[in-house]
Amino acid sequence: MISVVILGAGNVASHLYRGFREADNVTVSQWYNRSLDSISEHSNEVDITDDLSNLKVADVYILAVSDDAIAELSEQLPFEDRVVVHTSGGVGVYDLDKKHRRGVLYPLQSFTKGAELDFANVPMCIETIYKDSYPMLKELALSLGGPIQKVNSDQRRVLHLAAVFVNNFTNQLYRIGHEITESEGAEFDILKPLILETAKKIEHLSPFRAQTGPAKRHDKKTIKKHLKILDNNIEHKKIYELLTASIQKTHGRKKL
Amino acid sequence: MISVVILGAGNVASHLYRGFREADNVTVSQWYNRSLDSISEHSNEVDITDDLSNLKVADVYILAVSDDAIAELSEQLPFEDRVVVHTSGGVGVYDLDKKHRRGVLYPLQSFTKGAELDFANVPMCIETIYKDSYPMLKELALSLGGPIQKVNSDQRRVLHLAAVFVNNFTNQLYRIGHEITESEGAEFDILKPLILETAKKIEHLSPFRAQTGPAKRHDKKTIKKHLKILDNNIEHKKIYELLTASIQKTHGRKKL
Ligand SMILES: NC(=O)c1ccc[n+]([C@@H]2O[C@H](COP(=O)([O-])OP(=O)(O)OC[C@H]3O[C@@H](n4cnc5c(N)ncnc54)[C@H](OP(=O)(O)O)[C@@H]3O)[C@@H](O)[C@H]2O)c1
Ligand SMILES: NC(=O)c1ccc[n+]([C@@H]2O[C@H](COP(=O)([O-])OP(=O)(O)OC[C@H]3O[C@@H](n4cnc5c(N)ncnc54)[C@H](OP(=O)(O)O)[C@@H]3O)[C@@H](O)[C@H]2O)c1
Repeated sequence: MISVVILGAGNVASHLYRGFREADNVTVSQWYNRSLDSISEHSNEVDITDDLSNLKVADVYILAVSDDAIAELSEQLPFEDRVVVHTSGGVGVYDLDKKHRRGVLYPLQSFTKGAELDFANVPMCIETIYKDSYPMLKELALSLGGPIQKVNSDQRRVLHLAAVFVNNFTNQLYRIGHEITESEGAEFDILKPLILETAKKIEHLSPFRAQTGPAKRHDKKTIKKHLKILDNNIEHKKIYELLTASIQKTHGRKKL
Repeated sequence: MISVVILGAGNVASHLYRGFREADNVTVSQWYNRSLDSISEHSNEVDITDDLSNLKVADVYILAVSDDAIAELSEQLPFEDRVVVHTSGGVGVYDLDKKHRRGVLYPLQSFTKGAELDFANVPMCIETIYKDSYPMLKELALSLGGPIQKVNSDQRRVLHLAAVFVNNFTNQLYRIGHEITESEGAEFDILKPLILETAKKIEHLSPFRAQTGPAKRHDKKTIKKHLKILDNNIEHKKIYELLTASIQKTHGRKKL
């Protein structure tokens, strides 16, 4: 049985709490947040606290707090030589105070408090400084039921960056699609099956092989028509031009 | 019973052939292609031809051929005053020869010959010049079992453009994610659940409300780190900057 103390009560912390409570070989010994408001409803299930000096002894302390708060909170923990991890893709493992046995448990998924989430779809990326903390963190991550991956700092860094491309930037392309369709009173909703199909297609095909469309075909006539429609939105036009050029760079010149 | 002649034998034509054959109230009377090779395997199911002067009388002729071939092929059809539609998002309805009762049946989905496709996930956009061809085309589109939408030329034009953003451009973001992760030997595969979640999220949330991440949060520290990683790829860096700016324009200034 692995005992866990969760620190923080936001999107990630609240899902991890639920995930670990459902896991067989993990106990959440305690839940800390700087304010009790958001965790008090769980006080009959778990020991809750807003006082760092009250923290119990546990196998691992998970700092699921804002990126900017990680370093300071890890410093304030009134103990040393225990396993302390944060959950961020973008913060270094060395940002944790060096008095701890430091690591990272980065869940590569988008969390929203209150929204449903199946941990089977949450790959857990594990990074440790010392090898000997890995087996326990591995078991902990596996207990959630999704895939796990051992990563080093560089790999976690690029995974976090790539996640911005495939999640935040992709979502912005959906938003632009929404704006473009609405400009003529067309329904954004009828793009949704295409959006889903685009995401599903790369389950069995590389994004390279999955590419289609006017940019890849070097279909100048269509590209010109599209740019004309975008004349009233210089920013969308720039995005169109840049991504068209990017596709053409990836796929090379048209075959004659 | 609606009788259909399909012209072309590519991605769209071959799926439409199968879709209409499975539909209750539609018969495919004939299948034309300029070369018989790709349709000859169906010669025991349907009348096939490579000779336009042999075309049968039918309720509707579907020109599922390359965009550039639509105008010319419609001109070559040796009859007039019959319903003739093309299946393109990017070609005008007036590009069809005016001797026909012209229309468009634009399937808003990505087709690949040989790949499975459920027509339940293919919204059919219907455009006609004369109102009286609409009821038949509506019935024809409904027979495939997916959603249908009446559109005008402007709406079809922007739907086609929006499809490029949410399909081709999104897929290129996946590709960039692939390149970025591979550069450090990380696994692109563990981004797939996030990719799918991103697409699914907007089923019940607008892309505006679904947005998260460093750009929206105006998280300058993370953005700076990411740009530094991208220093060795000026093109990916430009895309990062442009989409970050786009998100920030959409969501306005950070709340203080
Ligand atoms: N959301 C995601 O999709 C996601 C995905 C992967 C990784 N992550 C990472 O997971 C971590 C948490 O993200 P989140 O989305 O859960 O954040 P969040 O919802 O904004 O919650 C942040 C939590 O941190 C606490 N906190 C903030 N400043 C603090 C401080 N100075 N001292 C102590 N506690 C403090 C907050 O306390 P209060 O409740 O009192 O405000 C809150 O409980 C971050 O490192 C993030 O990068 C997030
Ligand atoms: N693919 C998609 O995802 C998709 C989605 C929505 C709409 N569309 C539209 O559907 C139409 C067909 O696209 P597709 O992807 O099916 O194309 P495709 O797979 O490239 O097939 C093109 C077909 O057109 C025929 N063709 C080309 N030039 C011709 C000519 N001059 N005369 C007669 N036939 C000619 C080809 O004949 P051969 O077999 O002899 O080469 C082939 O059968 C296009 O208007 C496209 O914009 C496509």
